[in-house]
Amino acid sequence: MRLYMFYFVGLLFIQCDMPYKGKHTEEKSVNKEVLNPSENFGLVIHGGAGTILKKNMTDSLEQAYRDKLEEATKAGHTILSNGGTSMQAVTAAINIMEDSPLFNAGKGAVFTHKGTNELDASVMDGKTLNAGAISGVTTVKNPINLAVAVMNKSEHVMLSAQGAEQFAKEQGLKIVDPQYFYTERRYKSLQKIIEKEKTELDHDTKVSFMDPFIKDSKYGTVGCVALDKYGNLAAGTSTGGMTNKRYNRIGDAPIIGAGTYANNASCAVSSTGWGEYFIRGMVAHDIAAMMEYKEITLQEAAHTVIQEKLTKLGGTGGIVSIDRQGNVAMEFNTAGMYRAHMNAAGDLDIKIYKND
Amino acid sequence: MRLYMFYFVGLLFIQCDMPYKGKHTEEKSVNKEVLNPSENFGLVIHGGAGTILKKNMTDSLEQAYRDKLEEATKAGHTILSNGGTSMQAVTAAINIMEDSPLFNAGKGAVFTHKGTNELDASVMDGKTLNAGAISGVTTVKNPINLAVAVMNKSEHVMLSAQGAEQFAKEQGLKIVDPQYFYTERRYKSLQKIIEKEKTELDHDTKVSFMDPFIKDSKYGTVGCVALDKYGNLAAGTSTGGMTNKRYNRIGDAPIIGAGTYANNASCAVSSTGWGEYFIRGMVAHDIAAMMEYKEITLQEAAHTVIQEKLTKLGGTGGIVSIDRQGNVAMEFNTAGMYRAHMNAAGDLDIKIYKND
Repeated sequence: MRLYMFYFVGLLFIQCDMPYKGKHTEEKSVNKEVLNPSENFGLVIHGGAGTILKKNMTDSLEQAYRDKLEEATKAGHTILSNGGTSMQAVTAAINIMEDSPLFNAGKGAVFTHKGTNELDASVMDGKTLNAGAISGVTTVKNPINLAVAVMNKSEHVMLSAQGAEQFAKEQGLKIVDPQYFYTERRYKSLQKIIEKEKTELDHDTKVSFMDPFIKDSKYGTVGCVALDKYGNLAAGTSTGGMTNKRYNRIGDAPIIGAGTYANNASCAVSSTGWGEYFIRGMVAHDIAAMMEYKEITLQEAAHTVIQEKLTKLGGTGGIVSIDRQGNVAMEFNTAGMYRAHMNAAGDLDIKIYKND
Repeated sequence: MRLYMFYFVGLLFIQCDMPYKGKHTEEKSVNKEVLNPSENFGLVIHGGAGTILKKNMTDSLEQAYRDKLEEATKAGHTILSNGGTSMQAVTAAINIMEDSPLFNAGKGAVFTHKGTNELDASVMDGKTLNAGAISGVTTVKNPINLAVAVMNKSEHVMLSAQGAEQFAKEQGLKIVDPQYFYTERRYKSLQKIIEKEKTELDHDTKVSFMDPFIKDSKYGTVGCVALDKYGNLAAGTSTGGMTNKRYNRIGDAPIIGAGTYANNASCAVSSTGWGEYFIRGMVAHDIAAMMEYKEITLQEAAHTVIQEKLTKLGGTGGIVSIDRQGNVAMEFNTAGMYRAHMNAAGDLDIKIYKND
């Protein structure tokens, strides 16, 4: 019962989240709220960071990315504008990117060393600190929806592999044949990396992030953070992980605090980058903690964590984030990051390169 | 290569961690250190928290717990005293608890709904912020050793299930038949819970933590945090998770920031409790962040996070922690927590109940 109910006056708003069970029973009382919606809302999305350079991009490919970022941002914005929750906006925006082969999530997921596609995702609700995460699923069309189902319909926060898939089936989520995730582009990336490994004994890990479209390394992953009219934050992240990943590796995307974090006391964050460093740096939670405990702005906290702490650790990537005042930060230490922001007034800002 | 060479004479101490690859190259410069060892060191261990009441405990069982806690603490202390690293002490102390059927980790791991034993573990090195974690392994005798191997010998932070087991085999770790983890006590717990589920439609999740030995709920998990003579912190956590767990559930033990965190800038923390709440509360990292950013003591940060924030969220359990000055906090909001602390002077403090 911490920060909810801060706007009062009239109007009864029935929250659209699914009913809570188990871990959530103490929060049942927040399902009905008397609200006076604010006109301050907004969302930010990302579609991955990396060595994304104009010189390696064709006009048509760049336009395809811009179009899809716009579509995803507008889908989330429409929900927020119509009084939907930040979690609904996050899910809708991510679904559009998951369904596109352009991004390393859902349909466009990269291949593991074995030639399979193993997907990870997580979500967090800033009002209740409720969270859901899944790792290593191979048959779930929209992993972010499964993360939401784990959050709302299970007693757990994180499910994995076959167990997560069984839960997805029981919840009636859209199941696809693993072949659905086959895209020629991603399969060629895998072959190229395996070929490179054969000729380079001391190969650089970065080849695992090779993306032939941009002719350099890119960290896939899509994500969205949103602030709704009720002052509630939410964050979500979905990914196919690293091309050529082995040993059922789990990156930062399904790790609460690393890939995803949301807390109405501070901000909502979604990460994209070299997952190992984002876990070690606890990037998403560290930004929120710095902001809350040091009482600095979101922009200051995001800058310090990405440009100073993560960079010092040797990690690369970026984050998108938003706070309860609608301030946003889109911070990265790579050449580019697919990103877009839309505020309550409907101003849309789509960027790819560092100097956009 | 675990407890390798912790005896040394001479000025130059060659760190015995295995050579770094990939993610660790930027830290090579710390491998050789000219040291002036401090005489301030210590460690704290836990063997689980829960409704552990004197009235439900026999004298002989209590003595068995006290003896094993003493053995584990002294093993770690001997390493630290002889100039070993905090990570070596953490591993040695946890191995002893993993090999005992008394604790829910390694040999004494609880059963999943399917009647299998799925083990999780993680470690973190406070000097380098390097980390290793594994989830859902069924054949690795000492999961904490696999977490250390992931940290030191792979490019990843977190591996899971069959992939993690394959990596364990490649690294020459001790592999056992899954039958090794069968203990009558834990199997009876599972049967009791399944029986209870049949008769209770709206069953309480807490039954999943039922422990017939103490006739009430207990969160298993063992953990250790240590400060070595070189001023370096380390933390580790190992568990069998929840009895009757389904869907390849992952709890907080293998989640860096939730179950385990270590950072020389603040403290080392190992958690035990209802994992879902520890993930949502980012308990281990939150204690470290509060301490660093609010500039409060370890004890103040641990108290706030466990007694105020975790309790408000509805979570139960506890943590053990240590900072670079050797200050410790053993904080829990349950009736008891198996715990022990030993400082540089060799003062040993073993406690079980709240009012011990």
